[in-house]
Amino acid sequence: MTQATSPPAGITARAASLAVDDSLRFSADALAIARLSIYDCLAVAIAGAQEPVSRTVREMVRSEAGAPQASAFGLAQRIPARAAALLNGATAHALDYDDTHFDFVGHPSVAVMPAALAVAEQRQASGRALLEAFLTGVEVTCRVGGWLGRAHYNAGFHQTATSGAFGAAAAAARLLGLDAKQAAHALGLAATRASGLKCQFGTMAKPFHAGMAASTGVEAATLASLGFVARPDAIECAAGFAATHGAGQGCMDDPFAGLPETFRFVDVQHKFHACCHGTHPALEALKTLRARHGLQARDIGAITLAIAPQWLPVCCIAEPATGLEAKFSLSLTAAMVLAGVDTAALASFSDASCRVPALMELARRVGIRPDPAVADTACRATVVTTSGASLSCSVELGDPMPYATRATRLRGKVEALLGTQPAQALWDFVETLDTQPASDLYPRLHAWMAGDAA
Amino acid sequence: MTQATSPPAGITARAASLAVDDSLRFSADALAIARLSIYDCLAVAIAGAQEPVSRTVREMVRSEAGAPQASAFGLAQRIPARAAALLNGATAHALDYDDTHFDFVGHPSVAVMPAALAVAEQRQASGRALLEAFLTGVEVTCRVGGWLGRAHYNAGFHQTATSGAFGAAAAAARLLGLDAKQAAHALGLAATRASGLKCQFGTMAKPFHAGMAASTGVEAATLASLGFVARPDAIECAAGFAATHGAGQGCMDDPFAGLPETFRFVDVQHKFHACCHGTHPALEALKTLRARHGLQARDIGAITLAIAPQWLPVCCIAEPATGLEAKFSLSLTAAMVLAGVDTAALASFSDASCRVPALMELARRVGIRPDPAVADTACRATVVTTSGASLSCSVELGDPMPYATRATRLRGKVEALLGTQPAQALWDFVETLDTQPASDLYPRLHAWMAGDAA
Repeated sequence: MTQATSPPAGITARAASLAVDDSLRFSADALAIARLSIYDCLAVAIAGAQEPVSRTVREMVRSEAGAPQASAFGLAQRIPARAAALLNGATAHALDYDDTHFDFVGHPSVAVMPAALAVAEQRQASGRALLEAFLTGVEVTCRVGGWLGRAHYNAGFHQTATSGAFGAAAAAARLLGLDAKQAAHALGLAATRASGLKCQFGTMAKPFHAGMAASTGVEAATLASLGFVARPDAIECAAGFAATHGAGQGCMDDPFAGLPETFRFVDVQHKFHACCHGTHPALEALKTLRARHGLQARDIGAITLAIAPQWLPVCCIAEPATGLEAKFSLSLTAAMVLAGVDTAALASFSDASCRVPALMELARRVGIRPDPAVADTACRATVVTTSGASLSCSVELGDPMPYATRATRLRGKVEALLGTQPAQALWDFVETLDTQPASDLYPRLHAWMAGDAA
Repeated sequence: MTQATSPPAGITARAASLAVDDSLRFSADALAIARLSIYDCLAVAIAGAQEPVSRTVREMVRSEAGAPQASAFGLAQRIPARAAALLNGATAHALDYDDTHFDFVGHPSVAVMPAALAVAEQRQASGRALLEAFLTGVEVTCRVGGWLGRAHYNAGFHQTATSGAFGAAAAAARLLGLDAKQAAHALGLAATRASGLKCQFGTMAKPFHAGMAASTGVEAATLASLGFVARPDAIECAAGFAATHGAGQGCMDDPFAGLPETFRFVDVQHKFHACCHGTHPALEALKTLRARHGLQARDIGAITLAIAPQWLPVCCIAEPATGLEAKFSLSLTAAMVLAGVDTAALASFSDASCRVPALMELARRVGIRPDPAVADTACRATVVTTSGASLSCSVELGDPMPYATRATRLRGKVEALLGTQPAQALWDFVETLDTQPASDLYPRLHAWMAGDAA
């Protein structure tokens, strides 16, 4: 991987070059999807600002105070960019309702957006520069994350945290105006700071991982801008990040192939259920079956969900006890859909919902069948009714969804999260991001983040 | 590991219990060694405050500013504890002249002391409480690090950074007055944040690792004090830190055996050469040979150093080009000793010293022979003279050194670093640490750290 023939040879150097490439051409399609993700990410962060993890991290950074470099969710005052990135990442991921990319199985926006926002505000970058830095960062996350591959994820690492740190560093490096060499030092430093374990799923540490990644990115790029020297090939070098973190050998021939024509980020999946993305193919399939056949909970005998085996240790908590655990329980969320509970609503995931007898009873009838032939973005759901009928539906999340459908569903989601008028105002704000000068942009952004906006 | 019969069963819980054990009895011997390490660590940090890594990190945290919670090396103002820990760890390890413990092969004091200092000052803890928290923290580092074992180190992880984070979290948890459950959450959070790769040796990232560990410890304990929930068994659980970071299975039957009678930390090795500890057995052996036989550089035909194979990727840079790389070059440092260069002096490790023809010529005559039978604290050095004589000397650093000898050598080292009068004043300050009330202690400490002390 590191011994390609033409410089810049290694993946760290190539990610660095991409990060700071002034001549990079961003397609209108890619920018449009980036805007959707910023809209979605801001909305779930605003909605998540009172979650326990958000409050806890906010309390720490509020007491630290410091230079007013960047805005943070739920805070009236501005704080240092590094601290803002930490808080904003944790807050944006608190609801676990943000977007997912299956090239690397992780949540790119919640790691990259907080880093981009914090440094952009600190530097008073234009809206267009912010948007482009975000898109560059999430692209680096998808590319490096895809190269690290499923082997890395399956080894126990939360790619939101690890690959997210590389994307966050890339976005911050771009906004700080680093050159390619400095950016390689930033990514090299991020490689020794990037961490985050899947075993933390179901605890506050999971959303905190996004903040770690964002903060690591800001820190690494800031230090590189001040002259910090790390290994500029630390992702791929011998005993570097990939080698020590379970990455497969040669998981992609050329991780940066296709750019700038194709941004891999455009395949990002937005969430329309407020729980782990691994449950979504099943929930979409059951929703379809329920609507198609007018199923009621009392009609249902047994449910079989054929899913990719990798989800077993991720979102198959058999007996969830808390709202957070419920989001990682395929059987309970499946029961919710079949019982007509709105899985798009935050309120559906509470400690109390884990103790609803009717849901618990339905959940016990869910059989989970790991099937290596099923993609991790897919599910084949079969419901056997009490009258003996067998009803099936297959869903593949990766099937193309037209931009307009995606935007409409996202706007509906944000309406449910924030209310109709704020959803419209936020939409207008993000849709005009490109054209806003810094003097308008950051006061408006601050109002959204501080909770003072419409 | 996690399924022992009596609670607290797992290593995370046991480390947490130790961290916050109010009734822990500290032996006078252990406290005396802890004082030596604080003396040594403060001295190398004061001496390292103008190193490039220290200046770079200081510039970042200075611009962040914030609540005046803790003092930091080279800064007149106080800054938030988390930021102070980051800067102070990087500064204390900048010269790579701090202590080493071979139970886990890492530098315990530079990761734990900055965390303990920052939280102690923030909380205005007594000198005794600071000393005990430091000793508890370094003990946790040695115990957990020893349990993770050489397999973890050999997998590519810098234990100063990883095990150091656990000790830093333990020290901070003690000073923040956490209960055992909160401390387990702190250690569990540290387990998902702990990182640091040996591939960074020779760059600024290596000393930065100590700051990462210290800052992670402060952050984890602070968040736990505010209600943060992480996996309380994240070091040892399935797909937890140990399993994902190359730790050997069952590297110690009972990692906490022998406490409180025996603190493993008392075996810490202080450095008397300003370079990687892996070179020290060889340097001590060559120093002995040179003195014993009156060797001059021109007498020397060939040098053979039989060392533990694990040092090959650590401190055997064949052609160092910078002062930092010189510290990780066994052949060059060996040449220095044989040429009469003072390897205890910081000035001996410069970019220029890598280009001195006489040293380069001598360095080329050094043959390094990895020998699995040689302990990593040992070396068998053989010099064949130009007249054909073969002279040998074996050294084992672990051979007991009486407290008085250790103290004398350390005081000599600190005199060389800071000057005679400051060395004496710093000695008096640390020797009376236990009895100082907070109102005296922190202003004096601040003066030392800010560079205003005698």
